[in-house]
Amino acid sequence: MSNTSAHTMHDKLANMELLTLDNPVFCCYLFWATVLVVKMLLMSLLTALQRFRYKVFPNEEDLFFKNIEVQFDDPHVERVRRAHRNDMENILPYFIMALIYVSTNPNPLVACNLFRVAAIARIVHTLVYALFPVPQPSRILAFATMLLITFYMAAVVALRTLRFI
Amino acid sequence: MSNTSAHTMHDKLANMELLTLDNPVFCCYLFWATVLVVKMLLMSLLTALQRFRYKVFPNEEDLFFKNIEVQFDDPHVERVRRAHRNDMENILPYFIMALIYVSTNPNPLVACNLFRVAAIARIVHTLVYALFPVPQPSRILAFATMLLITFYMAAVVALRTLRFI
Amino acid sequence: MSNTSAHTMHDKLANMELLTLDNPVFCCYLFWATVLVVKMLLMSLLTALQRFRYKVFPNEEDLFFKNIEVQFDDPHVERVRRAHRNDMENILPYFIMALIYVSTNPNPLVACNLFRVAAIARIVHTLVYALFPVPQPSRILAFATMLLITFYMAAVVALRTLRFI
Repeated sequence: MSNTSAHTMHDKLANMELLTLDNPVFCCYLFWATVLVVKMLLMSLLTALQRFRYKVFPNEEDLFFKNIEVQFDDPHVERVRRAHRNDMENILPYFIMALIYVSTNPNPLVACNLFRVAAIARIVHTLVYALFPVPQPSRILAFATMLLITFYMAAVVALRTLRFI
Repeated sequence: MSNTSAHTMHDKLANMELLTLDNPVFCCYLFWATVLVVKMLLMSLLTALQRFRYKVFPNEEDLFFKNIEVQFDDPHVERVRRAHRNDMENILPYFIMALIYVSTNPNPLVACNLFRVAAIARIVHTLVYALFPVPQPSRILAFATMLLITFYMAAVVALRTLRFI
Repeated sequence: MSNTSAHTMHDKLANMELLTLDNPVFCCYLFWATVLVVKMLLMSLLTALQRFRYKVFPNEEDLFFKNIEVQFDDPHVERVRRAHRNDMENILPYFIMALIYVSTNPNPLVACNLFRVAAIARIVHTLVYALFPVPQPSRILAFATMLLITFYMAAVVALRTLRFI
């Protein structure tokens, strides 16, 4: 198929089917968003694991061991909670941004690779922040990768929809 | 209508109309997602209520009463804030996960019941965490219910979209 | 075109094309959601800026200057983090609520103006909370604006989908 006709067909079908499984870009978003959702939920379990390991609980009713009191400043628990909060600050807005970016019919190759890089960057971020703390700038680089990708998607969507301000 | 023809029709219409009001599963998602959004926003108001009740404010400009200072460690306020943070950690990823789960055309009966159970579990979680603290494992069970439902949806979506990795 | 026929056409096309660029209401949502995503991500950068300005870092590996220790209670940093947390508590549920509100085919004029007012209210909230602290009730008003808009959207969606409970 010639480039031109492919483009025309792309345009015709586009708006009707972008948020369906017929759109490979949407499927790619689905897969990597799912990976990130699972990664985020594992942070909850990791926090719970650290709480039991170091016997640090924030509520009276959680004191599963004798002779302990509620405690809030354990560094091992707080590190995981900071990593989890950073996930919420960055990944949750990314989910919405990437979804609406798909709905603007982006270049499939660019979009799919952005989804892959963003998801892997956040997995690296968790590894170097919560699991195996390593010297900077590894965490800053992993953090900046998804941030810049989200800004890029924001720029694309904002330019496409600017006249609806 | 026979089971087979219903299934065929289901498949034909599916990808075009999944994220519309024509799809009862999507409508069910809309209703229960709305319930959870309202529940989450009420946590903000509950925090504000506790702040006024115990006169605990985090900013200089919020000191609505005489002779008080900014304060951060009131147990009644912090309990509500922990419950609210737990909501954000679990419900917000669930919103995205459930939405993209709808877009993969799940079994209507399974999907609708998952939405119902997940929403009610989180309402129970709020009751036993923020409003009427009760002994464990009530909170852990309520927490685990939505977590497992989200993992199940993630597994379904990941298997459907694995080849777009 | 007469009002009646416009309405009929509106109804016919509606469910198929609501979440596409053919729907001006969706485009308006895209634009203002993008603005809010960018605003939220800038809070991360503002926190980082405050951390470098006041040399307050939460992790051992972040101590970019000599002779400093990890520190958690700097008022300038904590103010920005509270504003950021408030964003997450309010804007992230709003993203989902507004998206599913669009899918219920709302009145275009009402919907677009709600998106505009909500986004501008949250920008004002950030200005009066994180950047230039001013006396109350400016922050409460900015906060209440998006909250009430989200509740309104929730009421509309819940009434439309109540029979799918």
